[in-house]
Amino acid sequence: MSEPGTTIELERPLPPGSRIGILGGGQLGRMLAMAAARLGFHCHIYSDIAAPPAAQVSERLTVGGYDDLEALAAFADNVDVITYEFENVPVTAAAHLSAHRPVSPPPRALAVAQDRLTEKDFISGLSIAVAPYSNIDGTEPLPASIDDLLPGIIKTRRLGYDGKGQIPVMTRGDLEAACRSLSGSPLILEQKIDFAFEVSILVARGADGTLAFYDIPRNEHRGGILRRSTVTDEIVTPDVAAQARVIGQRIAEALDYVGVLAVELFVEAEGKIPSLRVNEIAPRVHNSGHWTMDACATDQFENHIRAICRWPLGPTTRRQDIEMVNLIGDDVSRWPEIASDGEAKLHLYGKDEAREGRKMGHVNRVIPRAGSA
Amino acid sequence: MSEPGTTIELERPLPPGSRIGILGGGQLGRMLAMAAARLGFHCHIYSDIAAPPAAQVSERLTVGGYDDLEALAAFADNVDVITYEFENVPVTAAAHLSAHRPVSPPPRALAVAQDRLTEKDFISGLSIAVAPYSNIDGTEPLPASIDDLLPGIIKTRRLGYDGKGQIPVMTRGDLEAACRSLSGSPLILEQKIDFAFEVSILVARGADGTLAFYDIPRNEHRGGILRRSTVTDEIVTPDVAAQARVIGQRIAEALDYVGVLAVELFVEAEGKIPSLRVNEIAPRVHNSGHWTMDACATDQFENHIRAICRWPLGPTTRRQDIEMVNLIGDDVSRWPEIASDGEAKLHLYGKDEAREGRKMGHVNRVIPRAGSA
Repeated sequence: MSEPGTTIELERPLPPGSRIGILGGGQLGRMLAMAAARLGFHCHIYSDIAAPPAAQVSERLTVGGYDDLEALAAFADNVDVITYEFENVPVTAAAHLSAHRPVSPPPRALAVAQDRLTEKDFISGLSIAVAPYSNIDGTEPLPASIDDLLPGIIKTRRLGYDGKGQIPVMTRGDLEAACRSLSGSPLILEQKIDFAFEVSILVARGADGTLAFYDIPRNEHRGGILRRSTVTDEIVTPDVAAQARVIGQRIAEALDYVGVLAVELFVEAEGKIPSLRVNEIAPRVHNSGHWTMDACATDQFENHIRAICRWPLGPTTRRQDIEMVNLIGDDVSRWPEIASDGEAKLHLYGKDEAREGRKMGHVNRVIPRAGSA
Repeated sequence: MSEPGTTIELERPLPPGSRIGILGGGQLGRMLAMAAARLGFHCHIYSDIAAPPAAQVSERLTVGGYDDLEALAAFADNVDVITYEFENVPVTAAAHLSAHRPVSPPPRALAVAQDRLTEKDFISGLSIAVAPYSNIDGTEPLPASIDDLLPGIIKTRRLGYDGKGQIPVMTRGDLEAACRSLSGSPLILEQKIDFAFEVSILVARGADGTLAFYDIPRNEHRGGILRRSTVTDEIVTPDVAAQARVIGQRIAEALDYVGVLAVELFVEAEGKIPSLRVNEIAPRVHNSGHWTMDACATDQFENHIRAICRWPLGPTTRRQDIEMVNLIGDDVSRWPEIASDGEAKLHLYGKDEAREGRKMGHVNRVIPRAGSA
């Protein structure tokens, strides 16, 4: 183990048989662990909950807090490389670990993604469009200039996901009420954007800087939770796809990113050439990339593992049109019907309780191409 | 738990979240466990070795002997259905377990596959061709009639795999020497067959008797170990494929089989219409079906899990021509080259020591079709 303060990098591809540490034990960790196992790696999950889904398919589990530096150090000692499956891993934990073992994606990507203000500052600093926004610093009264951002959405800067910690606001009155109801958390106000639809770009970046892009899914949400991602040749024009790839590349390179990165984008339909604005970034494999498991030569999970292990990326070629639908809460009770559907590939996460809003699994379904059988 | 002597069957499809017990912890168990996890099942491995590859991707492991009826019963109590990944599970163990929990494939399939004499008697009893054979009952001198089977191969009736326990014999002198060198084991003499090549038919049979067949791979061995399986439209003619499916169906139905069954077949090229002879059967997923992982809508592992859980089978449709090459012993040291080959899908088994003759992994590679890019 080297001196704290140093950041360690892999110098050569990590051989099969090596151990990968994954911070977080949810479904993303589970699918990463299975991809890693296929390549002959052993996985060790670190989670702050007792029996996380990823542990069911991993060799080892440590249950500990993300602030337990001793447990984190012991975890690091047992693995060869570390990654994470959710962006709310404390940056201090990731930074602490990166003094012991290579950590990818880089902890800086966490820092940027964890705070909506930092994230928007970072992205607009790269001359990439975002929704107009303003920090709400808690001092009252709110400045008059803020009215220009209405109607908007007030969001907690940190720890929001799946629409949690967000309140739409039409008027200054709404805004003041929302600030009071979310008081105690740092907030940001974003102008509501009129967009035609949302897409995402998934970028894999290798340890040597090689980039690979997946085709672009159109994403539909329900109740703030991703419901469906659809990928066909018609989702976006080649121009828009090229724009999206440039955005993904710029962000990945600015972060010196290694692994799979997702960028959620609003497609604005006004004007002849649709333009894109970044909604948010996720420094990890992403729900809008689950279709890659049944449509691509190399899925997002394998490419993330390849990247963090300093392996060459695999081809992201898509061989068919496809639709991914999340199974949320009770949706999972439809499993008998899905199991009988020859066109459906079912992926379940091993979660016991189908609580409302909980992602229990997903289904990928090939979309027959016009002209083919 | 019901009375010993009763055989239990699932009455309805086993819901996700249920627990599957797998006897054996090798690579087949590992790939079964990953397929089961994708469908939301929890896996429990029972193995007589300490840290088997399948345990790396399973929730639970029991290390115990296959004759430890108490450990087997405790294992059964913890799972909802039981399967096995190798055919040398003692029939007594499988029969004991089947009094506690549903066991698929049926223990009778084990009994048939474990003894080359029983197997050949069973298959020829179904009017399916096998190599001419004779039991060697250990009494000397060997009868004169046995000379008709020379040149032949003398094989131990039990516990042979990957060419182990087999000696080619040209003359009566060879035969007598071979019998002495293998003495202590029950033996069988098989006539050497002049065949053009070997194929296999993989049949999935559901709990309701539904059948699904995979396309037929041509199998090449080296040193008695499967080296390569190739699947294209040109491997066998439609006539031969139909013959192979009839053989697979007859055997599966005669055993009241549930799960994936492999039948190895010799293709004899003499005469205008090639004929088939059964070499041996494997009551489990099979090495010659590993290509299904990267070429079929539903791979052999998922269909085995579906069958034993009383789910409908998934489509076995093959979408591309493909070749599977085993990585045996030192072959695995070629992983950097394979990892860089965009056409190769690498599957490694998490085994530490690359001993000679040990199956360490396999590589599936799409074969470009003539006329396509």
